[in-house]
Amino acid sequence: VKTNLRPHIKTHKTPILAHKQIQAGAIGICCAKLGEAEVMVAGGIKDILIANQIVGDQKMSRLVGLAHHCNIMIAVDDPKNVADISSAAQASGAIVRMLVEVNVGMNRCGVEPGEPTLALVREIEKSPNLEFAGLMGYEGHLVFCADYQERAAKTKKAMQLLTDTVELVESADIPVEIVSAAGTGTYNITAEIPRITEIQAGSYIFMDGRYRSILKDFDCALSLLTTVISRPNRNRLVVDAGMKSITNEFGPPEIIGIQGTKPVRLSEEHGTVYVEGDATQLRPGDKVDLLPSHGDTTINLHNHYFAVRDGILEAVWEIAGRGKFR
Amino acid sequence: VKTNLRPHIKTHKTPILAHKQIQAGAIGICCAKLGEAEVMVAGGIKDILIANQIVGDQKMSRLVGLAHHCNIMIAVDDPKNVADISSAAQASGAIVRMLVEVNVGMNRCGVEPGEPTLALVREIEKSPNLEFAGLMGYEGHLVFCADYQERAAKTKKAMQLLTDTVELVESADIPVEIVSAAGTGTYNITAEIPRITEIQAGSYIFMDGRYRSILKDFDCALSLLTTVISRPNRNRLVVDAGMKSITNEFGPPEIIGIQGTKPVRLSEEHGTVYVEGDATQLRPGDKVDLLPSHGDTTINLHNHYFAVRDGILEAVWEIAGRGKFR
Repeated sequence: VKTNLRPHIKTHKTPILAHKQIQAGAIGICCAKLGEAEVMVAGGIKDILIANQIVGDQKMSRLVGLAHHCNIMIAVDDPKNVADISSAAQASGAIVRMLVEVNVGMNRCGVEPGEPTLALVREIEKSPNLEFAGLMGYEGHLVFCADYQERAAKTKKAMQLLTDTVELVESADIPVEIVSAAGTGTYNITAEIPRITEIQAGSYIFMDGRYRSILKDFDCALSLLTTVISRPNRNRLVVDAGMKSITNEFGPPEIIGIQGTKPVRLSEEHGTVYVEGDATQLRPGDKVDLLPSHGDTTINLHNHYFAVRDGILEAVWEIAGRGKFR
Repeated sequence: VKTNLRPHIKTHKTPILAHKQIQAGAIGICCAKLGEAEVMVAGGIKDILIANQIVGDQKMSRLVGLAHHCNIMIAVDDPKNVADISSAAQASGAIVRMLVEVNVGMNRCGVEPGEPTLALVREIEKSPNLEFAGLMGYEGHLVFCADYQERAAKTKKAMQLLTDTVELVESADIPVEIVSAAGTGTYNITAEIPRITEIQAGSYIFMDGRYRSILKDFDCALSLLTTVISRPNRNRLVVDAGMKSITNEFGPPEIIGIQGTKPVRLSEEHGTVYVEGDATQLRPGDKVDLLPSHGDTTINLHNHYFAVRDGILEAVWEIAGRGKFR
């Protein structure tokens, strides 16, 4: 069985990187927000799943507008939301494809597996201008589970909730075309489960400190170049990056490639580092690369990527989806 | 003794708000980064302290350029940096005013109090195109100390390091015009210490959850308007805001004005809230205001303020300094 890749672009937020992913074999992309999808459509991407609920009149207008310019799918978990989107789609003459989001144990959004999901599928089936495309379930509570065997076992159990529900829906004579799931931490586990048709992994594109600690399949490509601005004493230095340019979300950043440095203690505008050995030679003006603990929330602070190959700056790419949280 | 206010605009990052602060009596502003200062100068602000070290050739060029367009001061803590900026200032025909940053116990940047500070002051005094303007010390390790008496006692002790050093410098016949210190948490303590000439508080302008827990002198004016996008069960709801639009830095945001809601558990794109009582009536599409735990790192995620008075949207202000971390 071949499982498709539909990478989540909330990580990189940049059309050229989505195009590169599709060129490399991805069938389309995932977005978190309508604003991201708008940026991707403007950048020429055609097949988009917004893996989230779209709620409120203004957002529904934008959604049905966008449906005239790309093949769009969204996640739903509420019958009134389904009815509202059906009305908006009828008014605009658009067709909106829907995945029902199933709660596979993360306890965030999503309908419960089994009958509650089937009930919502039936709502979609009978609503004008909507197309039921399949089910979605995100095992986000498991993607960082450190032990691989435990991660695999728990993921299979969570996915069973999803695939059992697929069977229930199909036993009601409703075909389930798409079954979408997984993040970078579970991509290879979930991809091998029969009936899963696509994987939503996103972080794999750059990796980060958190994922690197549990997964060796991909290299780290994202770093923040900083400058040492202060050397108050032999064992302390300060770089010009803080929480406004690199995340603290999954812990402090690490300095890349310099022996004798501790993790970077971030304040808003500064990064304080305790150093020993060779690292005590660093002086104000020296450059230091930081590895963020999480790519997504770091990238969202920046307007541009500086794309470097073999030490040469090759391109500057605008992060067009930055701040598109609406 | 009158102590001046030089508010830190790293909080709001927006020229019109700096103008309003100056109109209300502030003598100028503080910035954290050169990029913020550039935005403020472009917005018509004339008196600026960059309360940070400016290191590296590119930044020094920008600094001396900016010195032709405003009255600029910067913080220094390193003799080579002083020499480099003197060279850049001479090349450009600019004058750069300097405060020596003194470490008052925060252990980030800064020279040690006493003789090491005096030595650096002498370097500035003898360097062409530089003007020694005074000393700066930030008691950032004390601003959140919960007990007021303890905060006051510790702040006085930390400030003693700074004011003793002022006396040492003046005993060497070098006048110290400016002595700059304090944040919102210590503004009234530090302002009463003789020889402190100005206060750098910034967060007071909007307040936030963290400061509100220890300080009642100012009201909270900053909130993030969100929409309920999912009601998976009676006791759980999800809003469309996560770490990409509101900080988790000092803990989770709180829902404002609705009884029966727990703090918001943030993931990247979602906020999950456990609810009871009246709050269980909230439905998808309902609007909910969140109070961030920290203003600064929340504002830095946004492009605009929506300024509301008595329930009416009065203005939309661009956050022109957002992302100006260089």
